Amino acid sequence: MPDVVSLIHVKRDNTRPLTDAEIDWLFTAYAAGEVADEQMAALLMAIYFHGLSAAELRTWTGAMIASGETLDLSQLTRPSVDKHSTGGVGDKVSLILAPLVASCGAAVPQLSGRGLGHTGGTLDKLESIPGWRASLSNDELIRALDEVGVVITAAGAGLAPADRRLYALRDVTGTVESIPLIASSIMSKKIAEGTSALVLDVKTGSGAFMKDPDRAGQLARTMVALGEEHHVRTRALVTRMDTPLGRAVGNALEVEEAVKALAGDGPDDLLDVTFALAEHMLELAGITASPSEAIASGRALDTYRRMIRIQGGDPDAPLPTARHVQHALIAAEDGWVTRLDALAVGVAAWRLGAGRARKEDAVSSVAGVRCLAKPGDYVQRGQPILELHTDDPARFALAAEALDAAGTLAIGSAPPPATPLVVSVISAADVADQVGA
Amino acid sequence: MPDVVSLIHVKRDNTRPLTDAEIDWLFTAYAAGEVADEQMAALLMAIYFHGLSAAELRTWTGAMIASGETLDLSQLTRPSVDKHSTGGVGDKVSLILAPLVASCGAAVPQLSGRGLGHTGGTLDKLESIPGWRASLSNDELIRALDEVGVVITAAGAGLAPADRRLYALRDVTGTVESIPLIASSIMSKKIAEGTSALVLDVKTGSGAFMKDPDRAGQLARTMVALGEEHHVRTRALVTRMDTPLGRAVGNALEVEEAVKALAGDGPDDLLDVTFALAEHMLELAGITASPSEAIASGRALDTYRRMIRIQGGDPDAPLPTARHVQHALIAAEDGWVTRLDALAVGVAAWRLGAGRARKEDAVSSVAGVRCLAKPGDYVQRGQPILELHTDDPARFALAAEALDAAGTLAIGSAPPPATPLVVSVISAADVADQVGA
Repeated sequence: MPDVVSLIHVKRDNTRPLTDAEIDWLFTAYAAGEVADEQMAALLMAIYFHGLSAAELRTWTGAMIASGETLDLSQLTRPSVDKHSTGGVGDKVSLILAPLVASCGAAVPQLSGRGLGHTGGTLDKLESIPGWRASLSNDELIRALDEVGVVITAAGAGLAPADRRLYALRDVTGTVESIPLIASSIMSKKIAEGTSALVLDVKTGSGAFMKDPDRAGQLARTMVALGEEHHVRTRALVTRMDTPLGRAVGNALEVEEAVKALAGDGPDDLLDVTFALAEHMLELAGITASPSEAIASGRALDTYRRMIRIQGGDPDAPLPTARHVQHALIAAEDGWVTRLDALAVGVAAWRLGAGRARKEDAVSSVAGVRCLAKPGDYVQRGQPILELHTDDPARFALAAEALDAAGTLAIGSAPPPATPLVVSVISAADVADQVGA
Repeated sequence: MPDVVSLIHVKRDNTRPLTDAEIDWLFTAYAAGEVADEQMAALLMAIYFHGLSAAELRTWTGAMIASGETLDLSQLTRPSVDKHSTGGVGDKVSLILAPLVASCGAAVPQLSGRGLGHTGGTLDKLESIPGWRASLSNDELIRALDEVGVVITAAGAGLAPADRRLYALRDVTGTVESIPLIASSIMSKKIAEGTSALVLDVKTGSGAFMKDPDRAGQLARTMVALGEEHHVRTRALVTRMDTPLGRAVGNALEVEEAVKALAGDGPDDLLDVTFALAEHMLELAGITASPSEAIASGRALDTYRRMIRIQGGDPDAPLPTARHVQHALIAAEDGWVTRLDALAVGVAAWRLGAGRARKEDAVSSVAGVRCLAKPGDYVQRGQPILELHTDDPARFALAAEALDAAGTLAIGSAPPPATPLVVSVISAADVADQVGA
């Protein structure tokens, strides 16, 4: 039987990779309480410094999957394909993408999380719809996939429980920002949910978790390799997150914008990312269909409405609105907006009540920020750039503080150069050398 | 109020030193249960990788001292001076040195620990003397120092309790081998015990905790700087620990050898190290005396006998002996012993019962190893090098396994070159640039 201190030494001193038997023993012993949280915390910090090899990571992720149940989607008649985003500001893509792809004939089992920090969570957004509930049993989930082709729900406690425990531990021990640990956390849940294919949206830039594009690319490659090794057809798009996606940031505000986009009236950047992801999802699912046609025909919106209804929501009910609205960031000169910092806007929305600081906190449905102007727009001196929404006017000052930094807004004498949102696409072929290494 | 995850990030990313206020808060919050063991474990692992600056280490050590009581030795009429060894195989120096220095007029408050792993503990050795007890109250300790000039006792639970808790945590989380953490652990207890001066024996070589002489030197300098910063006159000797010190390894066997050395009949290497340490201790205490004269006159042995008696021991009682004795390591050729590996002999003694694997384990008084030949001795083919002692004959096989490695014994055609045991001496002047940095 391995002893945990020796395993910690191996990772600390980077003497050799851990063996499959050692990793399997570690997770079994951790679940049994024979390895204590403080020992796992020290090991995670050593992994933060030295990483995990491709083989270690495959086994590590496999052990997290094996810690719980896995969903069996093989009985579905439609091909299953899912999407995951590492999170950004104004990132309501899932709300549009999931019903859109389902309306083209795929089954989209979106097991989502809640937001933490300045990036919102898809479940928090949907919960601003009157009556909508996030939790479904596994049977309800399968039924919704059969009937509507899409479900957005909270991941059940039975899927990869080791990840849940490790994530909570990483959160309090300063070991979140590790590529293999992030990759195994995301992929263990996605693989356990039973999807046949997966498209990952790995955000990079000021508003992203991975600010550095090289690290975002590394995370993307790591996750694609992991997915392929576990027989999930996986692709990753690295996309820019320097400014909010679309013009709405906040739960109900984002649902409103998503519904408009499904109705054919969405902002270009939001639709660009959504269509790019949709095309890759459909390709992996083996479906030939046009995402823009799915929107134009009304099929995508119809699927969205059925998706909301089957989880108790009323798609026709008016969304809640904030009691207090205020302008912020007033243009100091005429010119083109060249920068509107995603992180500053995300933190402002968070402080207005849209996000939570601790996972126990409640979020406000109505709080958020509307971007009245974005990079590329021409503004005149005195014109407001942002509109802040909240039910608690004391929060305006906190939001203003977040927007106060020098780099939040820039106005120039020429429009900013057009930069494509999709930085790169990572396919199985790009990581063939890592798979099975 | 600092938040512990931010402090972990600071050490993990090595962005800046922790402030005094942050370190003080950390120890207060840890004692209050507001910082959890898993958080401290992650921080310790980050410190393992990035170390502590001189200023951080001073504050860290100060916080460990402030976590408990400190002894006041100012009422003693003799100058106080203590010694600490980082631990080696056959290292019974304290048993000779402490009464020797006391017999020259110093007060030696030796608060010692127990052995763990292949190095023995001074208290374990003394407990092989019938009647001797390790635990004294603070009052008994002061009285013994007044009456005899020396006491070897267990450090009370009141001294640096934060160190006790941190050490236990480091032991199970693979974070023992960190120079600043080792230095703060040793020095917090020594400073809290109230000694005015301190000589450190930092062992290096195969049988030492610090196998690498450069790291041993770094630990020595770190501890001397820490002592001087806390107003303890401190000096460190880096000494070689490639082969057992003296010829006896094991509790009662070492007491027997120490008593012989006090009576004038000790092995050269043991006396060399003891006299070197004694000279530095006496110098720091401001006492002019000759250690060899203290032995030759019988004063040192007399002090030893009084030291044993005042703690309930009978210096005239026969020491326990093992029921089973067996030869091991038979010379395969004629020649000079050029190597007898300290670690292999230490592990063999440990497995015979002289040491413990976990701190709850009991040790055997009688178990151990006698070295019949050592490097520099001429041996003939067939001559046994070691004599193994144990009450449990099943352990002979375990000990033999430890001795089985290729590098345990080497016999050559010429005697090994004479290498001085004392590698270097670190004084306050050598670390003047670090003190107060």
